[in-house]
Amino acid sequence: MPAISPETLKEIRFDEQGLIPVIAQQHDTGEVLMMAWMNLESLTQTLATGRMVYWSRSRNELWRKGDTSGHIQIMKSLLLDCDGDAILAKVDQTGPACHTGKRNCFFRTLN
Amino acid sequence: MPAISPETLKEIRFDEQGLIPVIAQQHDTGEVLMMAWMNLESLTQTLATGRMVYWSRSRNELWRKGDTSGHIQIMKSLLLDCDGDAILAKVDQTGPACHTGKRNCFFRTLN
Repeated sequence: MPAISPETLKEIRFDEQGLIPVIAQQHDTGEVLMMAWMNLESLTQTLATGRMVYWSRSRNELWRKGDTSGHIQIMKSLLLDCDGDAILAKVDQTGPACHTGKRNCFFRTLN
Repeated sequence: MPAISPETLKEIRFDEQGLIPVIAQQHDTGEVLMMAWMNLESLTQTLATGRMVYWSRSRNELWRKGDTSGHIQIMKSLLLDCDGDAILAKVDQTGPACHTGKRNCFFRTLN
């Protein structure tokens, strides 16, 4: 896959820590799986390899989803929002997305 | 609707600016509409009124979605993720969610 173009890069607004939030959605069912963060390097690697690569804020390192757990995410498409400060990733998730073993991370009800 | 309980509040990890990212998803179709931010006051108002209230980072004020445009969001459920630093809001969106007039904000392809 092609590297990210300078024109595209200009439209992405990373925050002051160089990060952008990414929503991972199962491409065929519409289930929202998780939210994580990318920096430029993880975005570049995601586009280059077709596998979702995030930036782990807790470990301060690149996090290629599934390298430890086997629960990889194949990138189907990456969509930037209107003001350039959030990404929606349509993915194909193998197994559970959540480290708890649940399919998605949003299992606690606030209302 | 009830106010937020101290037990629930303890589980929410607002960032250093007192904000938490919120993914708004159309409850019946699964379409991801937008991503925005809440502070404690907007979360409290959302739970109290059943209408989505965000914190506008650009205007630095509470933003009750639809007050200007008429494109309101009715809260169906609010779900906190496993590590407490993101919320998935299932909503019923009237009209377009995006200020551009599009139904959702994610219309620019990066890959």
